[in-house]
Amino acid sequence: MVGNKKIFDIVIEGGTLLTMVDGKEPMHGARVIISGDKIEEVSVSHNSPIPETNEIITAENAIILPGLINTHGHSPMVLFRGMSDDLPLKKWLYEHIFPAEAKYINPDTVYWASLLACLEMIASGTTTFIDGYFFANEIVKAINKAGIRALVAQGVIDFPAPGVPDPNKNLDVALVFLERWIHFSDLITPGIFCHSPLTCSAKTLLRAYDISSRFDFPLQTHLSETHDEAKEIEKKTGLRPVFYLDDLGLLNSNLIAAHAIYLDEEEIDLLAKRCVKIAHCPESNMKLGSGLAAVEKMLEKGVTVGLGTDGCASNNNLDLFTEMDTASKLAKVANLDPTIIDARTVLKMATIGGAKVIGLENRIGTIETGKKADIIIVDANTPHMTPMYNPYSQLVYSATGGDVRDVIINGRIIYRDRRFTTLDSAEIMDEVKRLCRQIDI
Amino acid sequence: MVGNKKIFDIVIEGGTLLTMVDGKEPMHGARVIISGDKIEEVSVSHNSPIPETNEIITAENAIILPGLINTHGHSPMVLFRGMSDDLPLKKWLYEHIFPAEAKYINPDTVYWASLLACLEMIASGTTTFIDGYFFANEIVKAINKAGIRALVAQGVIDFPAPGVPDPNKNLDVALVFLERWIHFSDLITPGIFCHSPLTCSAKTLLRAYDISSRFDFPLQTHLSETHDEAKEIEKKTGLRPVFYLDDLGLLNSNLIAAHAIYLDEEEIDLLAKRCVKIAHCPESNMKLGSGLAAVEKMLEKGVTVGLGTDGCASNNNLDLFTEMDTASKLAKVANLDPTIIDARTVLKMATIGGAKVIGLENRIGTIETGKKADIIIVDANTPHMTPMYNPYSQLVYSATGGDVRDVIINGRIIYRDRRFTTLDSAEIMDEVKRLCRQIDI
Repeated sequence: MVGNKKIFDIVIEGGTLLTMVDGKEPMHGARVIISGDKIEEVSVSHNSPIPETNEIITAENAIILPGLINTHGHSPMVLFRGMSDDLPLKKWLYEHIFPAEAKYINPDTVYWASLLACLEMIASGTTTFIDGYFFANEIVKAINKAGIRALVAQGVIDFPAPGVPDPNKNLDVALVFLERWIHFSDLITPGIFCHSPLTCSAKTLLRAYDISSRFDFPLQTHLSETHDEAKEIEKKTGLRPVFYLDDLGLLNSNLIAAHAIYLDEEEIDLLAKRCVKIAHCPESNMKLGSGLAAVEKMLEKGVTVGLGTDGCASNNNLDLFTEMDTASKLAKVANLDPTIIDARTVLKMATIGGAKVIGLENRIGTIETGKKADIIIVDANTPHMTPMYNPYSQLVYSATGGDVRDVIINGRIIYRDRRFTTLDSAEIMDEVKRLCRQIDI
Repeated sequence: MVGNKKIFDIVIEGGTLLTMVDGKEPMHGARVIISGDKIEEVSVSHNSPIPETNEIITAENAIILPGLINTHGHSPMVLFRGMSDDLPLKKWLYEHIFPAEAKYINPDTVYWASLLACLEMIASGTTTFIDGYFFANEIVKAINKAGIRALVAQGVIDFPAPGVPDPNKNLDVALVFLERWIHFSDLITPGIFCHSPLTCSAKTLLRAYDISSRFDFPLQTHLSETHDEAKEIEKKTGLRPVFYLDDLGLLNSNLIAAHAIYLDEEEIDLLAKRCVKIAHCPESNMKLGSGLAAVEKMLEKGVTVGLGTDGCASNNNLDLFTEMDTASKLAKVANLDPTIIDARTVLKMATIGGAKVIGLENRIGTIETGKKADIIIVDANTPHMTPMYNPYSQLVYSATGGDVRDVIINGRIIYRDRRFTTLDSAEIMDEVKRLCRQIDI
């Protein structure tokens, strides 16, 4: 404040703005004013003078939108990107991924791999992500350095796991993790990620639920990712997976279930009724040959759905732009209906939908006065983004993550003109390459 | 030649080389020597001195591979990119695309839009493409300016079409087109594109076949893209579409059929027997809700298959990297089998497979001594390409077209460090934007 005049922190000037607020149309020649960590004002500039500000970002020939939200992933798995592709699922898991995790996942690899994942997510416009893995303390350290927003969960499974050799202690480790980071940063929410209702006993699931509820944090799990998994739970418990979880009392708005492929109508109805959040991961579901999630049906029935890339061993990138494209196109071909999951719907899924999944819809997911300034700017001044009739279509069907030019998280410029401001990308890539040279599975 | 020492034109030095020759493994620390329009030598450098050359392209931390080949498209349709998405197929076609074509397709729009398509294809690593549209003379002029390799076909349909108001003259126009460009350039093959066996009569198809055969040029057609189309042909002729074309005597190695979705086993067997070439367009087939082409079955039965983006109104980009990713993942989920259409197979489809479709497998599609120098270099020094265990996986599942750094076509550097050497991208984008401002459908 100089005299009576407020000096703002950042003004984004020009370009096409998608606020992602329901009913709001794209704004051309937009102006977004940021003060501290918050959005102060959203308007059309009409060539009025730019208010006094510490920083101006011009967005002519660009699209301004809320940062994307990745609702399911295991960021340290970038370490195994492309290591073992195109294999039968069981061989992939038991002869490649599990042995590699047992041998190479340690605090050092998790830390550096998480930094690499942050680089990749930032550069492709993701400003918030939901993560679940082992050595989660190291993930928190990495994302804190990066300045990205996240729900980071300690993985829980009833088998010996990296950093948790005794499965009886899996929830003790998780509890210590929660207590350590609960008040650490406005950007980081710690959580618990139960691997699946098959690999976690009822006792483990219930205790995880109790701890999560105590802190009022979301609980994550994989759900009905494969046909075999769903069938096995039914065989073991006499109930379809969603009904089994309901029987345990686990279904509520704090549960985030990833994949959700093998569900019948009644299960989807129950998920809707209990306000369970779904992380839809179409590319991973395709690449592993898992199956088709009936995302259009979930939306129709009012289930909250976000988009997720899953870990890099089954995708193999963290690009939510290509994920949006695939989510829309896959639903269309699965239903032989080109009107399903249109561009705006899938962009909502990747922004405000994701915010609802993580429970932060009052703080992020749209560009509105008073919300946190999590904003990305996508370059539209390229051949593949020309001409532009419909910015939603352009982002979903024409763009890739590589078109992201600037990223602001919590009012801080994290990526400017395609350069990282918080992380040393060369150092991180070199370190990950060095660590990966030992990997031999 | 200075004294006895030959001076080469281009040496590509370092990096990982995928020759795409059957049985050849990736070469690390590669050297590719180019002389004139041809590949002179392919080797591993072993730190030996770089031979004398006019140009050195260093490819450390990059992947060198044959230029990609797009086997199906309508390049001027970039004009309608994102204009009318997510609509029912008939509404999209009859209320949007056809009226827009009737009103806005003219020599000027076709010329500039084709230049824009060339920019996009070059920047995403496509060095050869197969095209079919109206005002094809203008497409030839554009691609000649760009320096890209192509089979460009004049569109033929038994309805009034842009530039061909009288359908009785559609093949006269095509014949004049063929005769005009037959000897024009080593890079350009003119051809005929019959819209479909439903929109072209038997008489039109037969005459198109006769003309194409006379010149020994490939003939293109859409084939069984929708269920309705296949059913209607069956109703009209009493034969499934492939058998109908066989009955006309059209099936041979000079026929390129795009989409090929609604085929039964016998039709696929017959396509294999007759050596018909297939352009597989998974993203377009998904976006329009058309259906799933059984590409794994076609390959198994020995059908030659290339990859195509289709026109930009139904994709909405010309990026063959994301198309490869989708082709592989879609086949996996459709068959619930993650081993199907592995990364190397789909990369073959987009390189040597495409070369076979166009009938140029002896000249392009692999990196080998004596072949034309159509080579691209993909930057692997980025977060989403790190680490790299398997370059095939990396290109298919992690890369996008935006990772292409350099493009050489016919021994000429067309794109260097992401800058176009033959085209003025700003001028072309501006001109297309100007033309599109009038478009109102």
